[in-house]
Amino acid sequence: MPCVTDAEHPRPSLDDPAYRQGVVDLLGLLAAGEYLAFERLVSEASFAPTLGQRLRIATIAIGELGHHRLLRERLEVLGEDPEEVMARFLPPLERWHAMTAPSDWLESLVKAYVGDSIATDFYREIGAVLDEETAALVLEVCSELGQTSVMVEEVRAAIQADPRRAGRLALWGRRLVGEALSQAQSVAAEHDALADLIMSESVASQIDLVELLERLTSAHVARMSALGLDA
Amino acid sequence: MPCVTDAEHPRPSLDDPAYRQGVVDLLGLLAAGEYLAFERLVSEASFAPTLGQRLRIATIAIGELGHHRLLRERLEVLGEDPEEVMARFLPPLERWHAMTAPSDWLESLVKAYVGDSIATDFYREIGAVLDEETAALVLEVCSELGQTSVMVEEVRAAIQADPRRAGRLALWGRRLVGEALSQAQSVAAEHDALADLIMSESVASQIDLVELLERLTSAHVARMSALGLDA
Repeated sequence: MPCVTDAEHPRPSLDDPAYRQGVVDLLGLLAAGEYLAFERLVSEASFAPTLGQRLRIATIAIGELGHHRLLRERLEVLGEDPEEVMARFLPPLERWHAMTAPSDWLESLVKAYVGDSIATDFYREIGAVLDEETAALVLEVCSELGQTSVMVEEVRAAIQADPRRAGRLALWGRRLVGEALSQAQSVAAEHDALADLIMSESVASQIDLVELLERLTSAHVARMSALGLDA
Repeated sequence: MPCVTDAEHPRPSLDDPAYRQGVVDLLGLLAAGEYLAFERLVSEASFAPTLGQRLRIATIAIGELGHHRLLRERLEVLGEDPEEVMARFLPPLERWHAMTAPSDWLESLVKAYVGDSIATDFYREIGAVLDEETAALVLEVCSELGQTSVMVEEVRAAIQADPRRAGRLALWGRRLVGEALSQAQSVAAEHDALADLIMSESVASQIDLVELLERLTSAHVARMSALGLDA
């Protein structure tokens, strides 16, 4: 799905202090997430069988670092200390990566693809209901995500070559999503402003949380199925 | 020391097949080394206490990836398959990184600084005695190395804050160099063309291997001493 905004709904305003704090938290979460995506993609690419493949992943990773810089700069424009805001969101993100450390190249590919795809879906959904400036940034980052789709073909070919891999990778996909939901819950529980942002009237009138999770989940199931995996 | 060439000596020529093969091996070794330097710097930066420090290391690492690309392109210009050439040099380089996996931020800083400095010294020495085109590339990369010197102050401050760290870090410095010498020996033993290049008349007339090792070692000792460490 493309990264588009819905022009029919009124936008919330950064003049609302509660909304603004929620946006700051959201930018901090995304900026920290993009930095870790860069770091872990580079590390986990070391499983790749050839240097050429490692280099392709590194190039995608450097794109994530570019997103990190954009989000960080926006926090500075809002008068925030990016370090301080991001530091609050590092623990759950680091926990997710620690709980989903791949043990081989295929797990590393599936993680990169699943993580990037869920992030793209989330950026698109949340971007559509933010104030215009924040939305423009979030959708700019979103439009550059999805580069891991080149990895799909390699995973599919590996499963066709040895169908026994499908069971293990299906479990792996479930673990990636399960751990993501678990850390997302802890983020929501520990960060009232972010939870309030998502539950706020201006946002909640457009995003039903249950429906959002259903959409993210069904997109994940469709992707796993396209890989030849039961989700 | 600056990266300069010695204009007084005649240059070897790529028309000499044995010299050319040695240059191909050298470029493959350096290109693979720069890729791994990128990957490991990014991974090992995760020990940094703040995201700001991680980001600074990542920026230096991306510079190493730029060097990798330059060296790789040169291999292509020479009609070689960079993947194939680099793959021959990955095992000793990966062994060095595996044997020198830091266990904390200070070890990670010392490794980055020592590794970068020895690489800079080696590039400068070897660059001075190669054919002009290869020398220009090697010295271009060399001139961009040495960015890890910003890390020195942090290590020195950490040792002053707790002098007990000095003993452990001095041992660490010795291990970094010892493992590097050990892997360098295995590279020389397994790659005749590279050994021949360094031992060849045109190169050997200008570089005495024993003196080269002495210079690299004494530069290392001086750097460790500047950090407040016995080498």
